Amino acid sequence: MIDKFEIIGLIAALLTTSAFVPQVYKAVKSKSTESLSLPMYLIFFVGIMLWLVYGFHLNSLAMILSNIITGILALVLIILKLKYK
Amino acid sequence: MIDKFEIIGLIAALLTTSAFVPQVYKAVKSKSTESLSLPMYLIFFVGIMLWLVYGFHLNSLAMILSNIITGILALVLIILKLKYK
Repeated sequence: MIDKFEIIGLIAALLTTSAFVPQVYKAVKSKSTESLSLPMYLIFFVGIMLWLVYGFHLNSLAMILSNIITGILALVLIILKLKYK
Repeated sequence: MIDKFEIIGLIAALLTTSAFVPQVYKAVKSKSTESLSLPMYLIFFVGIMLWLVYGFHLNSLAMILSNIITGILALVLIILKLKYK
């Protein structure tokens, strides 16, 4: 059952994940990742995976969904960064 | 009492928040925010505030700390963006 706070969490997930999309779109379209920092995205990706573990522990749908999607987006940026290096 | 999963959450918080610091440092030092998107950071900031509400609801120390710090960093970028516009 989705309660009021789960909806707040899902809106939060939608907003913070959406904020990340333009960066991925720009990198894919321009095939340029020059201004992206690889170590930063690697650290970020590991952090997201730990949030995912934590989200499963809290049984939080919003955190699980959010971190799976953000994790995929971060992985796309890492792969592009390695590809266009 | 901090359990194993709370420690995972705190490490996750440390990593994803750290990944955000270089961007703030760069903007403060260079006094340049040209490449930052204001609507994106406003959306991101609202999302972070909702995550904070959600973190209080889940009584999650990691989420509360992480979103307070990330919220402050995002707010600094928004203020710089408005200042150097």
